[in-house]
Formats: sequence, structure tokens, C-alpha cells
Amino acid sequence: MRTVYVNGDYVPENEATISVFDRGFLFADAVYEVTSVLDGKLIDFPGHMARLSRSLGELDMAAPVSDDELLDIHRRLLSENDLVEGMIYLQVTRGAADRDFLFPEADTRPNLVLFTQEKSLIDSPLAERGQKVRSVDDLRWRRSDIKTTQLLYASWAKSRAHAGGADDVWLVRDGHVTEGSSNNAYIVTADGTIVTRHLSPEILSGITRQAVLQCARELQIKVEERPFTLDEVRGAREAFSTSASSFVSPVIEMDGMAIGDGEPGPVARRLREIYIEKSRAAAI
Amino acid sequence: MRTVYVNGDYVPENEATISVFDRGFLFADAVYEVTSVLDGKLIDFPGHMARLSRSLGELDMAAPVSDDELLDIHRRLLSENDLVEGMIYLQVTRGAADRDFLFPEADTRPNLVLFTQEKSLIDSPLAERGQKVRSVDDLRWRRSDIKTTQLLYASWAKSRAHAGGADDVWLVRDGHVTEGSSNNAYIVTADGTIVTRHLSPEILSGITRQAVLQCARELQIKVEERPFTLDEVRGAREAFSTSASSFVSPVIEMDGMAIGDGEPGPVARRLREIYIEKSRAAAI
Repeated sequence: MRTVYVNGDYVPENEATISVFDRGFLFADAVYEVTSVLDGKLIDFPGHMARLSRSLGELDMAAPVSDDELLDIHRRLLSENDLVEGMIYLQVTRGAADRDFLFPEADTRPNLVLFTQEKSLIDSPLAERGQKVRSVDDLRWRRSDIKTTQLLYASWAKSRAHAGGADDVWLVRDGHVTEGSSNNAYIVTADGTIVTRHLSPEILSGITRQAVLQCARELQIKVEERPFTLDEVRGAREAFSTSASSFVSPVIEMDGMAIGDGEPGPVARRLREIYIEKSRAAAI
Repeated sequence: MRTVYVNGDYVPENEATISVFDRGFLFADAVYEVTSVLDGKLIDFPGHMARLSRSLGELDMAAPVSDDELLDIHRRLLSENDLVEGMIYLQVTRGAADRDFLFPEADTRPNLVLFTQEKSLIDSPLAERGQKVRSVDDLRWRRSDIKTTQLLYASWAKSRAHAGGADDVWLVRDGHVTEGSSNNAYIVTADGTIVTRHLSPEILSGITRQAVLQCARELQIKVEERPFTLDEVRGAREAFSTSASSFVSPVIEMDGMAIGDGEPGPVARRLREIYIEKSRAAAI
């Protein structure tokens, strides 16, 4: 049984609970981060903590503990759960208060929850065979740059696509792809340019996105950060997605049509290798 | 201390907790209803239960217990908490499961939470003086017809408006008002017509909205269900909002400009009286 962190306590997972008056539970008034673990170490940890600070700041939400304490909590959870490969999930909520659309007093104690999830990240059957995605309207709220728990639409859309034989969705707004259900989306054009949507309130500023684009530039692959259409996806040489828990993952099919030759492409494969190698070296 | 209902148990509010793996907590994968209480009785209860069924159905979420059992739970909470006037809040989540964007197995047990809130509904200072609202972009997800807990934007926007001296926000999409933070929005035009946005995925199908429009028709007031602009609000004779917990509540100012003569209007006042009278008579 896992050990879970809740507000200072390390408890068995079946005793890990939160008040029903928690604003995360009642209003999705909460932000989160997911940090990957390889070889028992944290990947891109400073980036995740920087983004957490930004999410909290955007929403005028207090940080529950210092970044140093967050690192200690992550490490203790790794140790308590003997986690070698997988993720650590972290959620901060605005705390518990009598239900009211108005934010509670600023001194309300935020709630902090962390738990581990074992998962094979390096050996990924999906990365081997490539993902099939379905395009669907992006009906999410318009501040996807803030990593909140308002995830129902992404979860619902992915689940429906999965029931229909696909692996994920690519979300589309005004004819252009925003991102995947929980990952950033990329194509490689006929001339070998990587195209991915520019940062804006429409998408999450992926920590893995930033690292992978840096890898691409080091490989002297041209990168364009701009919106791209479904037609461009159909005409792409290859496609892929990035996220903290999937690293770089090829996309081989959209809406039942093969992308490129319908196999994981060389750019995605190379970026995946390099990202994993660099991440392992820099893990803490 | 209140008694709260959690999955079959009636517990003191400080012991009312939910698993941190609850999908309501992690994904806002949850729907809710708020039923008002007058004279210790439930207002518009069948309407709230019908809407709950619809929300659950739209999201392929299982009903945790039968409608008859829900009525029993509401009544027991009224009795345990000696509630005479206020609200009963109900939330259903898709249940607890290891965190995954994919919905869990269909036989996952939904979680059900209900609690009471005391509030003076009839004697409302805000209804007496009238609300000041601020117009803001509607950045919510595009299925506001499903009553989910993805409420952060509405809560955030209302809180910011409140910090700036207003009481609430009216949300605006493509130049037209959708609704308030947690209420439906209405104007009364110069010729005495009530205008409120037509039902669509953009707004919640208010139980109070339905009842109040019925009252208006019985008073032979003309009703138009269509989008209206901010300019129409500025030129309106009066304005108001409706919700389960505020009934009919006049709006006297938008963005610092008086609506009509800047006082609660006669149509809103009359509809409030009639709605309360009819609701009391029909309460169960």
C-alpha cells in the first residue's frame, strides 16, 4: 500500500482524505504538477516548481510550503514507496471553507496532497507503436496556461476517443490544434521543420515542451512556434506529443488517417532518446 | 456543528472527508445541485433531481442512489441540522480511482456528499438594495448546461469583482451576456419585455429560471429567450438575476453605470414575491 502525503502527514493511501469542504473538491479551485521519476530521481523538478509558483500566483493562491520543503516531501515519498520509475503527483488547493463562490479569507490554509504512481516510462508500448489521435473541439476554459484541476473535458474527450479505438485527442480551436488532452502537440513538416503552437493562455507551457524544443535546436532542427491546422497534420511527415509522463511520444494516425508512413518517425524517436538521456543526467 | 452526509454515513462536519483519489478532487469529474429550503421544506426538489439526472447522463456517470433515497437524505439532513431556511448542497463524483485521464471502470462506486448551509433567503439585503455587476469575458468551458464543479473561473471572476466593489459578474461571450457567476441573467426592455438568453450549452438551465419565466407568463409579461448585448443592458429599464439560493434578485448597476433609475425595479420585485409565494406553497 502506498504512503501518501496530506498536509504534513504521511499516511496509508486508504486513509488519505481531504475535507468535503475543500475548495478543490467543490470548485476545482486547485492547481497541480506531475513530476516524473527515473532511477529513483526527479526529472525537471525546478521547472515543475517554477510552474507551480506561477499557477499559484495567477490565482492569488498561497504556497503551502517552501520549494525546499516540497523537494524534501518528494524525496521522502520516493523513499517511503521505493519508487524507481513513475510519477509524483502534487496538488495544492485554496483550502477548506464554507461553500461560497467568493474566495475565503486570504489566511485560509491551503491543502497540499502528494502521491506516487508507479509506471514504466522508458519501456512504453505506446511510444513503440505510436499513438492514434482523434481531433475534437477544444471546449475547455480559456486559461489552459494555468494548471488547474478543471480537467473534466480533457478526461471525458480522451475517454470517448479511447472507447472508439483511439489513444488520445488533439483539441482544436478555430481550426487550429491547441494541444492534446494532457500533452503538447507537434508536427514535422515536409521540409523537416518542427511546428508546435506558441505559448499563450490557450495551452499549457509544458516543462517537457521547453526541454524538447531545446534538444531540437541543439540538433539544428528548425522549430516554428505557431498554430497549425488539421490539414497540416494530415500533410505532415510525422507528428508527436510531449508531456512529463510520456516524454516524447509519436503520433501515427489522426481521425483514422495515417500521418506520414503511419509509423513512429525518426525525429520523434531521436528527440525521445536525447530527452531521456539528458533528463537522466540532470535528475536530482 | 453540522451533520454532513458522506456515502451513507451521517457524520460531524469536521469528520466529513473524501479520498484524495476521488475524481471530483483530481479532475472536477463531479456534478452538483443546490436545493433551497424555506420553512424547513425543499423548494423545486423534483426539478433539481431531474437536472441532476441529466448532468449524470450527459457525462455517463452512474447515479449513486435512487431519487427516493435522495429525498430521504435531504429530509434527514434537514432534521439533523434543524434547518429552517438555507440550502442543501449535493455533489456526486465518478468515485475514487488511481489517477488517470481515462474514466475508471463503469462499476466504480460514485461518491455522494450532501451538506446544509443556513442562510437567510427571504430577508436579503442584496435583494433589497440591488446588485452591482461587472461584465467580464466568459472564459468557462463550453458546456455550462452540465452542472459540474468546474467552477474556478466563475468563483475567481466574482471574487475579483467583489474586491472591486461589485457584487457579481455578468459573463459575456461574443458580445452577448451568457449568465451570472451562478445565476441566470435578465433584462426588462423599454417596452416591458423580459429578455433572457435561450437555453443552449452556453448556460445552465436554471430550475428557478424555468419557474420564474412561468410566473412572468402568468402575469402576461412578454418573454423573449435570446442573447442580449451589453448595450441592451445599458439601455434596459431594469435587470435581475435568478438562482436557487437568491430566487429573483434585482441588478441596479453594470460596470459602474446605473440600469434604469438605479433602483430595484417593479418587475423583479413582483416576480420575487410571486416566486417565493408559489415556491412556499409547493415546497415538500
